[in-house]
Amino acid sequence: LRREKKDINELIQGVLKGNKTALSQAITLIESRSKRHTDDIKTVISSCLPHANKSLRIGITGVPGVGKSTFIEQLGLRLTHEGHKVAVLAVDPSSSVSRGSILGDKTRMEKLVQEPNAFIRPTASSESLGGVARKTRESILLCEAAGFDILLVETVGVGQSETTVHSMTDFFLLLKLAGAGDELQGIKRGIIEMADAIIINKSDGENIKPAKRAKVEFTNALHMYPAKQNGWSPKVKLASALNNVGIEKVWTMISKYATIVKSNGFFENKRAYQNQFWLTQTIEDSLKREFYQNETIKAEFPEVLKKIQSQQMSPFEAADYLLKKAKL
Amino acid sequence: LRREKKDINELIQGVLKGNKTALSQAITLIESRSKRHTDDIKTVISSCLPHANKSLRIGITGVPGVGKSTFIEQLGLRLTHEGHKVAVLAVDPSSSVSRGSILGDKTRMEKLVQEPNAFIRPTASSESLGGVARKTRESILLCEAAGFDILLVETVGVGQSETTVHSMTDFFLLLKLAGAGDELQGIKRGIIEMADAIIINKSDGENIKPAKRAKVEFTNALHMYPAKQNGWSPKVKLASALNNVGIEKVWTMISKYATIVKSNGFFENKRAYQNQFWLTQTIEDSLKREFYQNETIKAEFPEVLKKIQSQQMSPFEAADYLLKKAKL
Repeated sequence: LRREKKDINELIQGVLKGNKTALSQAITLIESRSKRHTDDIKTVISSCLPHANKSLRIGITGVPGVGKSTFIEQLGLRLTHEGHKVAVLAVDPSSSVSRGSILGDKTRMEKLVQEPNAFIRPTASSESLGGVARKTRESILLCEAAGFDILLVETVGVGQSETTVHSMTDFFLLLKLAGAGDELQGIKRGIIEMADAIIINKSDGENIKPAKRAKVEFTNALHMYPAKQNGWSPKVKLASALNNVGIEKVWTMISKYATIVKSNGFFENKRAYQNQFWLTQTIEDSLKREFYQNETIKAEFPEVLKKIQSQQMSPFEAADYLLKKAKL
Repeated sequence: LRREKKDINELIQGVLKGNKTALSQAITLIESRSKRHTDDIKTVISSCLPHANKSLRIGITGVPGVGKSTFIEQLGLRLTHEGHKVAVLAVDPSSSVSRGSILGDKTRMEKLVQEPNAFIRPTASSESLGGVARKTRESILLCEAAGFDILLVETVGVGQSETTVHSMTDFFLLLKLAGAGDELQGIKRGIIEMADAIIINKSDGENIKPAKRAKVEFTNALHMYPAKQNGWSPKVKLASALNNVGIEKVWTMISKYATIVKSNGFFENKRAYQNQFWLTQTIEDSLKREFYQNETIKAEFPEVLKKIQSQQMSPFEAADYLLKKAKL
């Protein structure tokens, strides 16, 4: 995998020309994070950065079975047919266990994968969420530099992965199914607050009635949160991705959102905020990792915790003690 | 203020005997956080720790004007008359600006302050929320060591102060007023989720009708969150602290809560979790503070941020760069 300078420049040129093979290779290079490639990775990212940031980034979440793949495929087809270039990425920190529960099986989007203007990238290989986040965010930049103007970033919603996707996208979609009654029970904390729209999928046949009821319930739920500063009130829509019903309305809604936040400055604001968030988040994660992986701390931490729980030490005194130890 | 060893031992003995003057002096000593007193502070805390932790800690929040002082006074009087020893503390990181908006004016609890079994401590002097949190949490330990078995920890709800109080108490009360219609608009994110109970205060006279409506609305809102693991479903109660109406029911409810969580183990679990939280929180705050206060970082951070926003650098590359700089 060792590359010559010439090869890297060719790779970058390929990405910038929108060559999908080059884009794939560049993402693989970034994902490797091998120390041998540090300089190459830096060169690729810094060459792509000035050409990035021009897309609309849409985050999509929902539990397994909600129909995310079908929904993304239909939305993707709708967009490529209109002339957009669409890239689909995924954040799935669970993929080591599930062996790629999302996007792993490319046949799930068999029409979209054949579109010349679509690029589908299976989930980044497993590791910490922080690592996956970085890879995904850098992949977004590369896709944008390759001319993809709509990014669909999918997550299956394990652990903090929705928060991660929310913090790297412009619009956040929550896919739901209508169930038997109380739709709001069991929804993960904070998800409703993050959503710019909730789509009740599989609203077809016998599901239409419960879907309409769910729409009312979710609309009330959204109403309970303080209005967002960006001038957008989150919407609830019905869709049946399998029958290609409602997709058009979803896209009209997202376009409207983009128009509003681009004109009132919140689009730029949010991206600037996200940049700063990823800067500080990366720094702070690294500081914590270094501290807790320090051999002395690893050895002492359980002992100190025991002393706290048996009231021999206050948590603050214990913190002071460990902080001093880490510096020795 | 320099003390001899003998004085410190006398102070500790005073605290352990429940002497309120000694308790006040010990809290003042802890609040000083002066380096000169480091050893004394350690001695006081480590001597009190084995006698601490035996109280019920109740967090109380609500916006100014909701009647917190009256409510706390009535609840406090109810409890002292029953033989409890009640300490009232406050977390108010805003006090530098507001010159002590809570508890600063002791006359606001003029009956409670006269009770021999009540101890009211005005808010810790202003500084960072982390600092106030530490002082408050250590004051809790001292009060407990002095035999106070009910702790009422008040916060005015500025910034993250509710989260802080929530993470050092066993039961968290949100005080609300019934308003004109949509009660849920304008409530700070996350507060409803933290509440073990919502008390609609000033439920008297013409307020009774809107208060009852508010009760329904809040009950529905609480129902929207996933059930808590501890077996407790948050309650909504009406009260009129001024007329001493509803206070009895609030106390019955809190007692019931305590019985449940003490029998199912969640009382101990939560305290152990809170101890660990304060340990890691203190460590991580300190790591961040040290990093961001590093002179090189202070000088470089704004430049790096500019480069990120003008797409010359990715946030991750920038983080790597600053982390390396901090180590030089």
